[in-house]
Amino acid sequence: MTETNEADDHVETLLDEMTLREKAAQLAGTYVGTMEETRTIEDAEEMVREHGIGFVTPFGYGGAPYHDSTEVVEVANELQRVAREETRLGIPILIPVDAIHGHAYIDDTAVFPHNVGVAAARDRDLAERIGAITATEVAATGASLTYGPTCDVARDQRWGRAFETFGESPYLVGELASAKARGLRSAPVDVAAMAKHFPAYGEPERGEDASPVDKSLSSLYRDFLPPFEQVLDEGVEGIMPSYNSINAEPSHGSRYWLTDVLRDELGFDGYVASDWNGVNMLHRDHGVAVDQQGSIERAFTAGLDVHSLGEIDHVDHLVDLVESGAVDEEAVDVSVRRVLQLKADLGLFEDPYVDPDESAEALDNDAHREAALDAARESMTLLKNDDDRLPLDPETDEVLVTGPNADSLFNQVGGWSLMEPDDLDGTTVREGIEGVVADGTTVIHEPGADIDEADPESRDAAVAAAEDADAAVVVLGENWYIHEFGPEVINGPTDSFPNRTQLTLPDAQRDLLEAVHETGTPTVLVLVTGRPLAVSWAAEHVDAILQAYYPGAEGGTAVAETLFGDNNPSGKLPISVPRSEADLPVRHNYLPHPHPIGPDEHLPTYDPLFAFGHGLSYTDFEYRELSVAEESLTAGDSVTVSVRLANTGDRSGDEVVQLFGGRDHSSVVTPVEELVAFERVSLDPGDETVVDFEIDSSAFDVVRPDGSSRFESGPVSLRCESLETSLDARVDHC
Amino acid sequence: MTETNEADDHVETLLDEMTLREKAAQLAGTYVGTMEETRTIEDAEEMVREHGIGFVTPFGYGGAPYHDSTEVVEVANELQRVAREETRLGIPILIPVDAIHGHAYIDDTAVFPHNVGVAAARDRDLAERIGAITATEVAATGASLTYGPTCDVARDQRWGRAFETFGESPYLVGELASAKARGLRSAPVDVAAMAKHFPAYGEPERGEDASPVDKSLSSLYRDFLPPFEQVLDEGVEGIMPSYNSINAEPSHGSRYWLTDVLRDELGFDGYVASDWNGVNMLHRDHGVAVDQQGSIERAFTAGLDVHSLGEIDHVDHLVDLVESGAVDEEAVDVSVRRVLQLKADLGLFEDPYVDPDESAEALDNDAHREAALDAARESMTLLKNDDDRLPLDPETDEVLVTGPNADSLFNQVGGWSLMEPDDLDGTTVREGIEGVVADGTTVIHEPGADIDEADPESRDAAVAAAEDADAAVVVLGENWYIHEFGPEVINGPTDSFPNRTQLTLPDAQRDLLEAVHETGTPTVLVLVTGRPLAVSWAAEHVDAILQAYYPGAEGGTAVAETLFGDNNPSGKLPISVPRSEADLPVRHNYLPHPHPIGPDEHLPTYDPLFAFGHGLSYTDFEYRELSVAEESLTAGDSVTVSVRLANTGDRSGDEVVQLFGGRDHSSVVTPVEELVAFERVSLDPGDETVVDFEIDSSAFDVVRPDGSSRFESGPVSLRCESLETSLDARVDHC
Repeated sequence: MTETNEADDHVETLLDEMTLREKAAQLAGTYVGTMEETRTIEDAEEMVREHGIGFVTPFGYGGAPYHDSTEVVEVANELQRVAREETRLGIPILIPVDAIHGHAYIDDTAVFPHNVGVAAARDRDLAERIGAITATEVAATGASLTYGPTCDVARDQRWGRAFETFGESPYLVGELASAKARGLRSAPVDVAAMAKHFPAYGEPERGEDASPVDKSLSSLYRDFLPPFEQVLDEGVEGIMPSYNSINAEPSHGSRYWLTDVLRDELGFDGYVASDWNGVNMLHRDHGVAVDQQGSIERAFTAGLDVHSLGEIDHVDHLVDLVESGAVDEEAVDVSVRRVLQLKADLGLFEDPYVDPDESAEALDNDAHREAALDAARESMTLLKNDDDRLPLDPETDEVLVTGPNADSLFNQVGGWSLMEPDDLDGTTVREGIEGVVADGTTVIHEPGADIDEADPESRDAAVAAAEDADAAVVVLGENWYIHEFGPEVINGPTDSFPNRTQLTLPDAQRDLLEAVHETGTPTVLVLVTGRPLAVSWAAEHVDAILQAYYPGAEGGTAVAETLFGDNNPSGKLPISVPRSEADLPVRHNYLPHPHPIGPDEHLPTYDPLFAFGHGLSYTDFEYRELSVAEESLTAGDSVTVSVRLANTGDRSGDEVVQLFGGRDHSSVVTPVEELVAFERVSLDPGDETVVDFEIDSSAFDVVRPDGSSRFESGPVSLRCESLETSLDARVDHC
Repeated sequence: MTETNEADDHVETLLDEMTLREKAAQLAGTYVGTMEETRTIEDAEEMVREHGIGFVTPFGYGGAPYHDSTEVVEVANELQRVAREETRLGIPILIPVDAIHGHAYIDDTAVFPHNVGVAAARDRDLAERIGAITATEVAATGASLTYGPTCDVARDQRWGRAFETFGESPYLVGELASAKARGLRSAPVDVAAMAKHFPAYGEPERGEDASPVDKSLSSLYRDFLPPFEQVLDEGVEGIMPSYNSINAEPSHGSRYWLTDVLRDELGFDGYVASDWNGVNMLHRDHGVAVDQQGSIERAFTAGLDVHSLGEIDHVDHLVDLVESGAVDEEAVDVSVRRVLQLKADLGLFEDPYVDPDESAEALDNDAHREAALDAARESMTLLKNDDDRLPLDPETDEVLVTGPNADSLFNQVGGWSLMEPDDLDGTTVREGIEGVVADGTTVIHEPGADIDEADPESRDAAVAAAEDADAAVVVLGENWYIHEFGPEVINGPTDSFPNRTQLTLPDAQRDLLEAVHETGTPTVLVLVTGRPLAVSWAAEHVDAILQAYYPGAEGGTAVAETLFGDNNPSGKLPISVPRSEADLPVRHNYLPHPHPIGPDEHLPTYDPLFAFGHGLSYTDFEYRELSVAEESLTAGDSVTVSVRLANTGDRSGDEVVQLFGGRDHSSVVTPVEELVAFERVSLDPGDETVVDFEIDSSAFDVVRPDGSSRFESGPVSLRCESLETSLDARVDHC
C-alpha cells in the first residue's frame, strides 16, 4: 500500500461537513451473513444508504451467502455504488475480510497452509509472498483490509486457534507476522493490514478460547508483545484487540493497553477496530459495563476507534454519549479522521470499484496456486523416520491410503475457509499419491474411520487392504473448525473430538492406526491437524510420522511428494508436541526454577514428545561449527554468529538453521533459551556452507518486572543443535 | 504467645556489645540431618559454640536422627546450654520446626489430618484447637517456632503440596489459616508462628513444585494475598517467602514483595526467614545472582532477615558485604534486633530449657489425640452415596477391606510426618473397622495392590473375598510424599504414581477397584489422598465414595465410624475434583469471559467431577430461605444474610452452610462467585435453625489492575446451595 498525504485536506473538509451522526456512522460496521442476527445484502445496503455506515463485510466469515468470485465483485461494487452515489457525502465504505491463509472463503483463490504450517517452513520470503498474493486476491474482490497478520503466540496447545498462529516462539511469530505484513502491504494493490489480537490472546486459561490471559507483566512484555512491536514497525494500518481479559481488564475496554501502551508507548497511529462482537462482550460476558451503551463508552474511551459490528446501535449510542458529555466530540473526530484518512490512503475516494475483468485475471491464478503448493512443501515436518521408512518407493505395487483425512479437502484446508466442501478446489492426499506413484502402482483408498466416529466396515476393509499392500499411509488428525471447535454443524457436539480437553487421537482414529500397524505392513502416519496432537502410541510404535498441519488446498500434492521422495521435508516444529494434556504448559522457553528436594524428584520441566524446532530430513545435515566473531557484545551493537553446516547425506535438501540463546544470569529470571535467529538454506550432497547470523544486542535484552527491557552485562549462552558457545554481554565498551 | 517490651533495653544493650560477625551469625541457621550435606548434632553445637549461630533445627524435616520425644528434649536443652554457657554473649538459639499437621515428626504427638482435610471440616474452632495443641507439643520439645500456618491457595490440583493447603478459596484459606495462627499463639506456652509461602506459591506452572506463579497483579492481590493479610492481622511473628518466582522475580530476592508490599503496604514488622535453601536458589536455579554472596546480597537487600540454612557461609558473606559497603550495618542491626526481640518475647533469655517432666506430660496426650480424631471425623467428605449405600450395617456378617491404604498408617498420615513407619502410633482403616463392627462380624483384609504396582496374588485374593463378603471397602489413594512427590526412597522413581502429571488412579489401584466392584458385592471407595483424584470411573460406577484426605493418625477410626454410621459425614470439598488433568485449571471462582461463536461451542468452563463445597450427609438438609436484612449495602457497613435450614432426615448431623457471592457488573472482571461466609451447625432430625452471616462490605470489594481494592456501586448476587438473592452495593448512603 502506498501512503499519500494528498487526501488530508479532503479529509478535513469532509470532517467539517459531517454531522455528529455521520461521524459516528463512520465508526461502525455491519456484515452480510448469519451471526446472532441474519443480515442480508439489502440490510447492509440500507445501513449504508440511510445511515452512512463506514464498514461492511459482505462475504467471508460470518455465514455470508456469497463466495462465487464474480458475484462477490458485484456485491462489493454495488455496496460502494450505494455509498458513493446514494449518501449525502459519498464516503466509500471499507470492506474488511478474514483472509487468514489466503482469501479462502472465496472460490478460485489460493488456499495456503495455515500459519502454523508456514511457521514450520521458517521462510520469511515465503511468508511475504503469501501476504502479497493474499492482498492481490483480496483486492480483486473489492475488499481492502485483511484482519491479519496474526501476532498471537500460542502457549497452550489445547487452544482451538493455535493453528492460526506462527507458534510458541515470540521471535518466530514476530519474524513471520512482519514478513506477512510486508507482503500484504507490498502488493501492487491497495490493501491494509490489521495486526491481531492485541496484546495477548494465546495463553487462555484451560486452553478455552477467549478466557483470560492472566499473566505477569513481564511475561506479557516478553512473550506476547514483541510480535506486535515488530509488526508495528512494518506500518500496519490497524490493530484488533483480543476478546479476553488481562489483569482483570478486557482488552476491548482497557485504556492501559489500547492507549497507554499501544499509542503512547508503542507509538501506533493507525486505527483500532473491535473483534467482531468484542464491544458487546464487555457487558454481556466480562461484566465491566451494565449495558451496550456502557460497553461503547468504555471501549471508545479506552481507545477503540471502530466498532466492527456496531451497526445503527453504535451510531445511536455514540451520539447519545457525545450529547450527554460522556464522550468528547473531539475524540470522535480523531477516530473518524483515522478512518477517512485510511480510506483516502487506500484510494477508495478515487475509485472504490473493482474491474471484473481485472478481478478474473487476479483470481483462479496458477502462479498463486503454485505458491500455495510451495508453501505446503516447505511446511512438511518429518517427526520420525526410523529405519528410513520414508520415502516410499513410487514403483511399489500397492499402497493403501486410509484415515478420515486421506481424501478430505475440507479437513485439509481447515477453518477460515469455504464452508461448502463441494465448492473446494484442490488436491487431497489420496489424489496427490495417485499423482506421484508410478503408472503400475495400485492406490487403494478406504476412509477407515470418521474424525470421531468409528466406521467398523470401512475399518475392516482398510485392515484387509493393509494386509495385501506394500505400504500403508494413515492420514489422521482434525477437521475444519474455528475458535472453540465450532460450528456444531461441522464438528458435532461440543464434547466430540476435536475439543479443548483432548490432544490425543480419538478412539476411532487410534484404533484404525493400531489395526493397520498390526498387519505388519510398513505404516506411515500423516497428521493433518491444526494442533500438535499427543500421539504417544504412534511415536513409540509407528516408524514414520509426517506432520502436515492444515496444508491448504494443494497440500495433498505436497504430502504425496514428501511421502514418495519428490519433496525432501524441511519443516521444523513451531510448537512443542506434548506427551499429554496433563503435562501442560509445555514450551521450550520456560523459566528456570528451583527443585526443592532435588532435581531427581521432578519430572522434567520440558519433556515434549517432539520438541520445538524438531524436524528431520531425508538427507543428513552435520553441524560442524558454531562460532562468534567477537567474544563480547556491547549494548546497541551486534555480533556475527556463524554456523558451519554440511549435507553429508545423498540427497539435496533444505535445512533450517536455528540459533537459540539465553542469559545465564541476569537481574531477573529469563527463559532457559529462546529462538533468536533462523535461516533456511539449500545444500546439495557433499556441500558445506556457513550461515552468518547478525544478532543485535537487543536479542538478549532482559525484560524487567515493569515490562521494560534492558541490556545487562553477563554471560550469554548460544546453542545450535548440539553445538554450544557463549558471549560476554557488556553494557559499555571496555 | 505473650508479647512483652521489657526485653527491649536488654536487646539494645546486647546489640551494642555485638561484633558484626556475631550479628551476622544471629541471622543464620543450621540443622541436624541429611540435606545436601549431612550435619550431626556435633556440627550444630560447634556452629553455635564457635560462631554463635542464631537458629538450629535439630529435629523434624530434613532427615534428623531424633524423633524420640525424650531424646529430642535432651538435644534441644543441650543446644541451648551451649548457646547460653559456651558463647561470649550467651544468646539462646531459636529452634524452628515444621509442624504442619501437629508436631508429626516426633513420637507421641497428636497427628492431625492435613490442612486440606481441616479445610473440609470448615470449623474455625477446630483449626484454632489444632494450632493450640500443636504449639503445646512443639514447646514441649524445646522448639519455639513453627513454619506455619500455610496461607497458600491451591490453584493447581496436580501440585504436590496441595494437601498442605486449606484449598482453593482465598476466603477459606484466610479464615482457617488465621484460626490456626490464633491457636498457635494462644497456647499457654511461648511459640511463634510463621506464615508461608509469601506471596504466592499455589499455582505453579504445570503443577510443578516451585515453578513460577506467573499471574497478573490483580490475581495476586485477589487470589493469593488475602490469606496473608488476614493472618498478619493475627500478629504472626514471621513470614517465609515462596521458593518460586513471580513476574520474573524470585520471592526470596524481591524487594517489591518483601519490602514494598510486605512491610510498607501490609505493615508487617516481624521477621522474614528464608525457606530452607531459598537463598542459594537465587544463583543456583533462578539465575538472578552469580554466586552465593550475590544471592545473599540480593535476598538481604530485598528484605530477608534470616537465612535459615545459611550457616557459616552466610556469616562470612554478610560480613564481607558490610565491609565492602554493599550492605549497611544499620540494616543488619534492624534484622538482628528483630531476631533478638523475638527471642526475648519468647522468653528464651529467661529460660530456654524444657523440663523433661513437663514435656512428658504435654506429649503422649489422650486429649490431644481425641482432638485429632475429632478433626478427622469432621473432615470426612461423602462425595457420592447412591441408594444410601452408606452407612454400612455394623451387624453385617462379613466385610472385605482392601486397597493399599486400607492398613497403612504411614500412607494415612501423609508427608511432613515421621518417616519411620514402624514408629507410628495410631489406627488404620482396617483397625478402625475392626473396632466399630459388631462382635460377630468378620473383617477380612487383603491389600490387593500397592500404590503403583499390581500384586496379582493379593488382588485375586481380594476379589475372591469380595465374592463372599456382604460389603467391600476399597481404600485407595496416595502415599507419603512431600514437595514434588519425594523422596525417592519412599515414592520410587519420579514417574511412578503419585506424580504431577497423573491425577487418575494408577492402573494397579483402578484394576483392583473395578474387579471388586464387578463381583456385585456392595462396594465403597475410600480415598486416602492428598490431592483430589480424578476418579471418573468410580464416580460413574461405584455407589459410594468417601474422601478421607490424609486423615492423620486417628483417621482410621474416623473413616470406620463414618462407614458404619457412628459419624455422620459433614465435610465439604475445599478444592474442586477435576474430571481429568486435561481440564485444568478447574476452580469455582473463575473469571467470566466471552464465547466468541456461542456458548454452546465451549465445553463448560467449570465442570468438575465434584464441585468445591460439595459434600453429602446421612441426613437431609433442606435450605428453606436465603434473605438479606437490607437490600442495600454501603461501603464500610455490613449486612446480615440469613439462611433458614432444616434437618428433614432421620439422623442428627452437622451441616456447613456456605454462602457464595459475586458482582454482576463492576469496573473490572471479577470471579463468577467466591465463598464469602460459612458456618458449621448441628441439627437434630426435625429441627430448623437460622444461620445469620454478618457480611462486611469488603467481601465485595473489587480488585483493580494495580492490586488495590475498592468498593463500588452495583448489583451483588448471593447464593446458598440453590437459593439465590441479591444486594445493591452503594458507595455512599442515599
